[in-house]
Amino acid sequence: MTWGESHGPAIGCVVDGTPPGIALTDDDIQFWLDRRRPGQSRFTSQRQEPDVVRILSGVFEDDNTKGQVTTGTPISLVIENIDQRSKDYSNIKDKYRPGHADYTYDAKYGLRDYRGGGRQSARETACRVAAGAIARKILGDGITIRGALVQIGTMNVDREQWNWDQVEQNAFWCPDSEMAAEWENYLDDIRKKGSSVGAVIEIVAQGVPAGWGAPLYGKLDSDLAAAMMSINAAKGVEIGSGFATAAFSGEENADEMRIEDGKPVFKSNHAGGILGGISSGQDVIARFVVKPTSSILAPRKTINRNGEETEIVTKGRHDPCVGIRAVPVGEAMMACVLADHLLRHRGQMGA
Amino acid sequence: MTWGESHGPAIGCVVDGTPPGIALTDDDIQFWLDRRRPGQSRFTSQRQEPDVVRILSGVFEDDNTKGQVTTGTPISLVIENIDQRSKDYSNIKDKYRPGHADYTYDAKYGLRDYRGGGRQSARETACRVAAGAIARKILGDGITIRGALVQIGTMNVDREQWNWDQVEQNAFWCPDSEMAAEWENYLDDIRKKGSSVGAVIEIVAQGVPAGWGAPLYGKLDSDLAAAMMSINAAKGVEIGSGFATAAFSGEENADEMRIEDGKPVFKSNHAGGILGGISSGQDVIARFVVKPTSSILAPRKTINRNGEETEIVTKGRHDPCVGIRAVPVGEAMMACVLADHLLRHRGQMGA
Amino acid sequence: MTWGESHGPAIGCVVDGTPPGIALTDDDIQFWLDRRRPGQSRFTSQRQEPDVVRILSGVFEDDNTKGQVTTGTPISLVIENIDQRSKDYSNIKDKYRPGHADYTYDAKYGLRDYRGGGRQSARETACRVAAGAIARKILGDGITIRGALVQIGTMNVDREQWNWDQVEQNAFWCPDSEMAAEWENYLDDIRKKGSSVGAVIEIVAQGVPAGWGAPLYGKLDSDLAAAMMSINAAKGVEIGSGFATAAFSGEENADEMRIEDGKPVFKSNHAGGILGGISSGQDVIARFVVKPTSSILAPRKTINRNGEETEIVTKGRHDPCVGIRAVPVGEAMMACVLADHLLRHRGQMGA
Amino acid sequence: MTWGESHGPAIGCVVDGTPPGIALTDDDIQFWLDRRRPGQSRFTSQRQEPDVVRILSGVFEDDNTKGQVTTGTPISLVIENIDQRSKDYSNIKDKYRPGHADYTYDAKYGLRDYRGGGRQSARETACRVAAGAIARKILGDGITIRGALVQIGTMNVDREQWNWDQVEQNAFWCPDSEMAAEWENYLDDIRKKGSSVGAVIEIVAQGVPAGWGAPLYGKLDSDLAAAMMSINAAKGVEIGSGFATAAFSGEENADEMRIEDGKPVFKSNHAGGILGGISSGQDVIARFVVKPTSSILAPRKTINRNGEETEIVTKGRHDPCVGIRAVPVGEAMMACVLADHLLRHRGQMGA
Repeated sequence: MTWGESHGPAIGCVVDGTPPGIALTDDDIQFWLDRRRPGQSRFTSQRQEPDVVRILSGVFEDDNTKGQVTTGTPISLVIENIDQRSKDYSNIKDKYRPGHADYTYDAKYGLRDYRGGGRQSARETACRVAAGAIARKILGDGITIRGALVQIGTMNVDREQWNWDQVEQNAFWCPDSEMAAEWENYLDDIRKKGSSVGAVIEIVAQGVPAGWGAPLYGKLDSDLAAAMMSINAAKGVEIGSGFATAAFSGEENADEMRIEDGKPVFKSNHAGGILGGISSGQDVIARFVVKPTSSILAPRKTINRNGEETEIVTKGRHDPCVGIRAVPVGEAMMACVLADHLLRHRGQMGA
Repeated sequence: MTWGESHGPAIGCVVDGTPPGIALTDDDIQFWLDRRRPGQSRFTSQRQEPDVVRILSGVFEDDNTKGQVTTGTPISLVIENIDQRSKDYSNIKDKYRPGHADYTYDAKYGLRDYRGGGRQSARETACRVAAGAIARKILGDGITIRGALVQIGTMNVDREQWNWDQVEQNAFWCPDSEMAAEWENYLDDIRKKGSSVGAVIEIVAQGVPAGWGAPLYGKLDSDLAAAMMSINAAKGVEIGSGFATAAFSGEENADEMRIEDGKPVFKSNHAGGILGGISSGQDVIARFVVKPTSSILAPRKTINRNGEETEIVTKGRHDPCVGIRAVPVGEAMMACVLADHLLRHRGQMGA
Repeated sequence: MTWGESHGPAIGCVVDGTPPGIALTDDDIQFWLDRRRPGQSRFTSQRQEPDVVRILSGVFEDDNTKGQVTTGTPISLVIENIDQRSKDYSNIKDKYRPGHADYTYDAKYGLRDYRGGGRQSARETACRVAAGAIARKILGDGITIRGALVQIGTMNVDREQWNWDQVEQNAFWCPDSEMAAEWENYLDDIRKKGSSVGAVIEIVAQGVPAGWGAPLYGKLDSDLAAAMMSINAAKGVEIGSGFATAAFSGEENADEMRIEDGKPVFKSNHAGGILGGISSGQDVIARFVVKPTSSILAPRKTINRNGEETEIVTKGRHDPCVGIRAVPVGEAMMACVLADHLLRHRGQMGA
Repeated sequence: MTWGESHGPAIGCVVDGTPPGIALTDDDIQFWLDRRRPGQSRFTSQRQEPDVVRILSGVFEDDNTKGQVTTGTPISLVIENIDQRSKDYSNIKDKYRPGHADYTYDAKYGLRDYRGGGRQSARETACRVAAGAIARKILGDGITIRGALVQIGTMNVDREQWNWDQVEQNAFWCPDSEMAAEWENYLDDIRKKGSSVGAVIEIVAQGVPAGWGAPLYGKLDSDLAAAMMSINAAKGVEIGSGFATAAFSGEENADEMRIEDGKPVFKSNHAGGILGGISSGQDVIARFVVKPTSSILAPRKTINRNGEETEIVTKGRHDPCVGIRAVPVGEAMMACVLADHLLRHRGQMGA
């Protein structure tokens, strides 16, 4: 399975390798796109992008199929971009916004498309979510993939208060209702100042059987790291207890095993469900950090295309914490990686 | 460029895409392998693996070449395994060592090679180091790749004391001589107890020009994440300020730019040298965490192949902190990823 | 560089790796698409597909670019399908048309989209031509790629009469004007009978420098073979003198070399410009055969989905010789393969 | 599954993705290597290469496995080169042998390893045969892959006389005993003259189920074309009736279907077992042409590295018809492609 994408008047996406006969409608994909959509609270960008997806190919319906299903051939999608304000770009046209990719694009390509954030925009993630929706269909109902925001700034959720139901009930995908209330005040303050802050997202996949992945080429954790780090603004990825394991002793870290109801169980999950590049049957847990939005109101020192020193202030409809909208994207990347590994595992092992 | 490998009586490695005419001898590779070799201090495994590399193909020497050089065709290497003690494996043959991949291998494949750690052994990393030696040759003298251990357990190096020269002068690749002395006592204690501890490794590449990488497919940070996370026992990867950026404000995080000596300079490097998947011309900085060695003397609860509960004690010649030997491996992975991106960049951009 | 595609209400295509700064408009692509378009003579399908291409991303224009140019980031295109007659498919819905992929699709996927030929339709080749248009831009003016029809049925062109100018002046891309006249009568007869016939297409690339390709992975001839054989209805590919070399002696086959004007020249080109997987600087010549259209008026014995014996007659707007429209497609595949190899060569060799 | 290789003092090969638990010994691979080995009759090179293969990894044996079996992890092999005569290469060191890759290597890389044919030598095909041996194991007993020489020079086998048993009973893998006798005289003559001739090889896979392959990416015929064309000296590939279909009418070409014993059967197999990139359940048939050996005794005009005109005579232990030894290589490539497609099909379809 692959996901493709491109940025401009529309976003495209091709998914290859999907098994045939899976029920799949535009609505099945739209459901997940709507979760990523900006403008849903005052804490995300006020751009209005309806993000309407249209399946171009790879599905079919007739009397025998009981509704629209995948054909097994490549599925392609398109999401038209509507809200592209033809605003004045003279401010950012020749200046490099610190923290943005303006400078690196120019350094590589000698030119860049600066409109609407251009190719750098996180708008690209819409098609990741679309591909993720198909990946969830491939994985089936036995596997549940959920994401949550676990840290904004220095404020962490209390894991004792973790409640997945809460995640859908606040503007932050926060599993801890008390922390959600605190974040609301905190982010309001940041938003009013025109500043921004970073965040940590945790993605949990339940129901992944033991055995997906490989010892060397195609390690499950390596593929997850690549997928999560490829998300806009991501600066770190960890699996299970991640960086905390540096301070663990071998005794603490090694998840002990027992038998319960005739099945192997682990007494802890520091490994995040992956040992030696292969899933262990425990929850697969990945966490990634998203840096603060670089588009802020405070003036920042920078240079321009002509190599002159200058300052820049980035106005626009930006996210005070772009990490919020990264939650559905992280879920989608987990789904894509797992669907890939389901297919590869089945190829090698036959079931 | 690819690196391949396999585990058994010998380790092989194929590197494709190397430019021709680069001076390359067995010794050039051996130099880096010797840095990874176990048994060099009491803080690493006491196995004695001479790790002698032999180039099988892809090099040539005649009157015109001034010494042995690459031919541009695939280079293959072999490293014979010498120290394979035919010891008694009955202890681990049917029991799953917690923290090891024993269980996941059996869950996937239905069998596993348990000898000498089998396919799971970090011995595999020898060929990564060999491939990295070739990658350094491709990168040339303008790029310097160095690694250091920055944390063992809860003990971090003092960045004010950072001295690259120190790195070669202690058993830990530690850039802070005072901390190296403390780690010595600390690890001695852990070693004597038969326990282990985790560590964090930092890899710095200096001299990488701005422009390597791509905005979507083949992001430099995504490829580094995959490479570092694929190292045995790695559980997390971060670029630049990494997970710390969650607590940053947009103002703190965005590295400001100025002109010095007519060239663009950044006033900080929270981005770790990568913006939008493309190198910025600053140092490329990646950090990864290695969990504590799972082979410890303390008995741990586990199960066996027959689904029965039992306990296990892992004797053997293991590393109290496997993170130490991960330093040259991390350097090698950085070199491989950068060499790949040099070639890809040159392909697209023509220089 | 990659070309992607999908079949349904629209055809999409993503091309990655294009160097930046190359002039590229919709019209640049449309020019080549118009050559492939059906309905241009009575010898090709009478479907009316305007095949209007729209570039969705990867291009940009401002004051500095002097017209619209590539940005270096992925280019995506879409071609909407207009002429999809909602005709009655009951004839082919459950019956397998001999020579078509109806049976193999059903055997693999358990279902198939039979509308408008469904996913099997040669309509897919439109996006190959679009990708080829971009590939030509990458290759630049120094390389000329042209195709010609050299055989229809048992009637071969006379190579003594080869005239590239003629190719644009008849309905067959025939380089031999006398043979073009003969084919006209011959195909009229076949068309009136509702039958069809096969053809051989020759693609010639002039100006390819010596050195593109590789000895093992990424052989230029191997990549051309894959590309040509992937064209709908192709059943064979040959390079240079191809199958005729079976009857050659070593003396006849080995193209001798001389020096002319200080440069190496070959006295013949049986190798078709490729030796050991690497271009020799001579014309790169590939030839492929396209089988006769399977959609014919004569009733053919077949079976249906229920495993019952039956007969089928395929009505519709089909090509009496689908090989005619394969000429621009073959040119496009040659362009895509060469552009890929230009980029790969430059990556390894630096120029 | 991949096959890798390199040329020098030894040939290596890595095969990834093999299912676990398949019986595999050195002898299983040696059996097939011995078929490719030179020096077995006067019609192939008189070099003596024992081609002894050694499996380095990816297999295991203990009380539970009933003999040595694959572990599911990468398998690596090595074949040491023994017969490397340190002869005088001054003849070919600076001169380009017509028909060889000498010139293209130098044009690309600026240097080449001219010893023993260097990297260009067909010796590389040994590891293809080794990989093919593993591929056959993956395919299992239900699929039979056999190759035959069907043409030498202008002399074709009589298909009415086709007898697979004959193939093992002459020096040519010839299925027609009368033609084998004729070839013997014919090739003796060519050999004595120091000349050479081309040949056509046919590979047939029986037992391939309907459904392997894909409509676009990963077409079975496209992958076969790439694999066969990558064999040293191959200049053309065709599937089923191949180039002959140019002269077919649609009626002749479309293989009609019937039901026999409750199963779909085809009344002919012009498609060579592949329709729309997917196997049809019929025999998969690929044919490729191998040009005459370029190393001949007759002096040929050429140039040298300094751009001067000269002549060359290639002495050595060469094959008068290298196509003979290409038969086991073609079988191996068929096996590798089919094994890949088995795994991919199973991944997507689940069985």
